[in-house]
Amino acid sequence: MNKKPTIALDAMGGDHGPGVIIPAALDSLSNHPNLNLILVGREDVLNRYLADSPSTLRKRIQVHYASEQVEMDDSPAKALRAKKDSSMRVAINLVKEGKADAGVSAGNTGALMAMAKYVLKMIHGIDRPAIITAIPSIRGHTYVLDLGANVDCTAEHLFQFAVMGYEQVRAIEDIENPKVGLLNIGAEVTKGNEQVKRAAKLLADSHLNFVGYVEGNDLCTGKVDIIVADGFVGNVALKASEGVAKMISHSIKQAFDRNLLTRLAGLLTLPVLQSFKRHIDPRRYNGASFLGLRGIVIKSHGNADRLAFANAIKMAVLEIEKGVPMRIEKRVAGIFAERKTA
Amino acid sequence: MNKKPTIALDAMGGDHGPGVIIPAALDSLSNHPNLNLILVGREDVLNRYLADSPSTLRKRIQVHYASEQVEMDDSPAKALRAKKDSSMRVAINLVKEGKADAGVSAGNTGALMAMAKYVLKMIHGIDRPAIITAIPSIRGHTYVLDLGANVDCTAEHLFQFAVMGYEQVRAIEDIENPKVGLLNIGAEVTKGNEQVKRAAKLLADSHLNFVGYVEGNDLCTGKVDIIVADGFVGNVALKASEGVAKMISHSIKQAFDRNLLTRLAGLLTLPVLQSFKRHIDPRRYNGASFLGLRGIVIKSHGNADRLAFANAIKMAVLEIEKGVPMRIEKRVAGIFAERKTA
Repeated sequence: MNKKPTIALDAMGGDHGPGVIIPAALDSLSNHPNLNLILVGREDVLNRYLADSPSTLRKRIQVHYASEQVEMDDSPAKALRAKKDSSMRVAINLVKEGKADAGVSAGNTGALMAMAKYVLKMIHGIDRPAIITAIPSIRGHTYVLDLGANVDCTAEHLFQFAVMGYEQVRAIEDIENPKVGLLNIGAEVTKGNEQVKRAAKLLADSHLNFVGYVEGNDLCTGKVDIIVADGFVGNVALKASEGVAKMISHSIKQAFDRNLLTRLAGLLTLPVLQSFKRHIDPRRYNGASFLGLRGIVIKSHGNADRLAFANAIKMAVLEIEKGVPMRIEKRVAGIFAERKTA
Repeated sequence: MNKKPTIALDAMGGDHGPGVIIPAALDSLSNHPNLNLILVGREDVLNRYLADSPSTLRKRIQVHYASEQVEMDDSPAKALRAKKDSSMRVAINLVKEGKADAGVSAGNTGALMAMAKYVLKMIHGIDRPAIITAIPSIRGHTYVLDLGANVDCTAEHLFQFAVMGYEQVRAIEDIENPKVGLLNIGAEVTKGNEQVKRAAKLLADSHLNFVGYVEGNDLCTGKVDIIVADGFVGNVALKASEGVAKMISHSIKQAFDRNLLTRLAGLLTLPVLQSFKRHIDPRRYNGASFLGLRGIVIKSHGNADRLAFANAIKMAVLEIEKGVPMRIEKRVAGIFAERKTA
């Protein structure tokens, strides 16, 4: 366990850039007394935002220069080839060089993934990195992976995602033996595509606590702790869920705003609705982890606000404290050893 | 247009069987003065349920005997091979024989699809039938297909789904040129799997009003009228959306139930929340159509209640009135002719 974690922030990334990232960074320093941050980006810009920051926090911040920025519409290939001095790339380089224990960015997901993979390299035995995040369920929350890093996954890829998700949830949630479900279009063994059916066999034969197939609605039911899916499917399921939650929240707001009586009603139910709203607040779940890399990289939503970005930093702190990449590496090595002797 | 539609109901299917289906059938006869129904199942059972029905409605009902029933856990292959005198199979046979213009069942989806395909056959030029339904969006509703009949779809399959969905929505919703979106994991042209990328090209070159890629949240945004997806992806997206809506409704109910004050608040906002609740009520959207067959088959949710099952019958009436299969057949023939001359 690293007692004094250092995190490199791509301070120029995302929709709001340093205007949101620097206040979130200061909040994080207040919340985590041992944390140190490296803000990567244009020094002149960052220093301007930091001008009024309290000196007790400021002294735990280092500003690191990077001349360019990855744009949201840069292709991963272009960003990798042409943006070698971008705030995103330099933040990842700092992780590689051991100067930071993790990197956080709210920038272009594809570019971040391409750079992270290229610079940090994969854990031996993991073919593809996966994106994982927690989403709210009736009972608490459920982790889902992959969320879009990979399409056309083989059974072995899905199996590897399950192994990584299992280690992540054991570490972050302190659950001894989390339940793993495989996303399918029915609970029956005859359903699904070939990859999913073969992955189910691999999972059933593994050390994981595999409970079988789950369906789309199980993103919410809390039936399992980890849901494994092809990145295409996981991405669509996550965005569909977010879309429905947004539509319903919007409609409820409208219902309460209609007239004086309904506004009064809103006040009366506010405390309870707030607690629910807080439970499903996407800002609380901000911070998707890239698993399978030799290093910690957290992706924040592009439009994250101060609270949301601070949560992404918090996820990085947790993964550093728990040593997630090392745990995955160890587990995968164990599986390899077993396969060799089998 | 058929002036006196006749619909065959699998009266034994679904979680509730004739206890729900017969009241729904009577409601439908009241709502559609020209409608005739054939109830397929055990005559003794059905006649018992029909004993107290008004004679004006009863005379538009014919009871047709079938000795067996497809169970929810029967595999499609087993149902097809061994349940030839099931209420489901006999209802489809009646469509094939021209004695009914459509069939409706709340039974086992896989078995219904297998039987419908085997008995009714495919429209020439369509490789696989697809399941389509409407789901609520912010503005109104959006049709999504395929919802699980097909996995591992090729680009050509996705293209055919788009053609069928387009004709369905033109017919049912009376929209001249409905907007078609292809479900993907990003709006950028570089994203997605190979099938989706190739399907996008086919769609862009077609007569359809193809607006490009849409994402999971667009199931709710009302950005397009029809969303095309592989059956695995469509199924997961639909179930994820239903799951979130259920979770949120449940939590809101709890919020209002908490104490006297919150119950009062609930009363004050009831009219508005009700109108919203009605909008997203899954019962209103009950009745998924099997497209691509030479005949009309509607699948009701297994746990449909009276209102929901009546909506499935209503969808069958609409498809008969609009002649959906014929429209699809004509359109596909046109595309074939174009391809030949191209």
